[in-house]
Amino acid sequence: MNFLDELPWNGDGLIAVVAQDASTGKVLTVAWMNREALKQTVEKRQAVYWSRSRKRLWRKGEESGHVQKVVEVRLDCDADAVLLKVEQVGGIACHTGRESCFFRKLENGKWVTRDPVLKDPSLIYKR
Amino acid sequence: MNFLDELPWNGDGLIAVVAQDASTGKVLTVAWMNREALKQTVEKRQAVYWSRSRKRLWRKGEESGHVQKVVEVRLDCDADAVLLKVEQVGGIACHTGRESCFFRKLENGKWVTRDPVLKDPSLIYKR
Repeated sequence: MNFLDELPWNGDGLIAVVAQDASTGKVLTVAWMNREALKQTVEKRQAVYWSRSRKRLWRKGEESGHVQKVVEVRLDCDADAVLLKVEQVGGIACHTGRESCFFRKLENGKWVTRDPVLKDPSLIYKR
Repeated sequence: MNFLDELPWNGDGLIAVVAQDASTGKVLTVAWMNREALKQTVEKRQAVYWSRSRKRLWRKGEESGHVQKVVEVRLDCDADAVLLKVEQVGGIACHTGRESCFFRKLENGKWVTRDPVLKDPSLIYKR
């Protein structure tokens, strides 16, 4: 896995990852990966992140079913960010039941929720 | 500037920022902002980042002229990433002279440069 060795993992052993819908171009999520997460993401062709809050691998969609199928993996010029182009299963990336995590927009100095909830989170997370 | 107070600036006082071309949807750059950088970005409607390597505010385009005019500012669900939709002046976001910083693609376990240099960096950076 030479491609993993080329990344300057940060002090916590992580790299920032942007997930973008491969067909619409919508930016869905910014999350983090450690070495194992990126390795599994590439092997499985499904996004696996590192959850900083839970301090464990987070197989995106493991509870919700909203997995991200990886179409393309890109790296930026200074190799400290990864771009995943994905097919977002269920059309919902956010735990709030929205398409994208970036559902708030700055308007006149305030963060305003602009995108609709597509599915009630209580129906997504049954536990 | 209440909207700045709502962000959980990390231990270094920074937040991750994704810049996306507002018209094409192409992801251009991932960079970082501190409080002052985001304040100035919103005031000037042009991207101002925090350069972690130079440890100073980095007015994107200050040398190259490739400024990013801000069309929209978005925030993600856990408020630890900002999405800027921008008009990329000159059509070049990367210091390598490419449209996007994400010009390398993972192919068969190798990072392969896939996007062309649009302008020789020696012609962009005269100093």
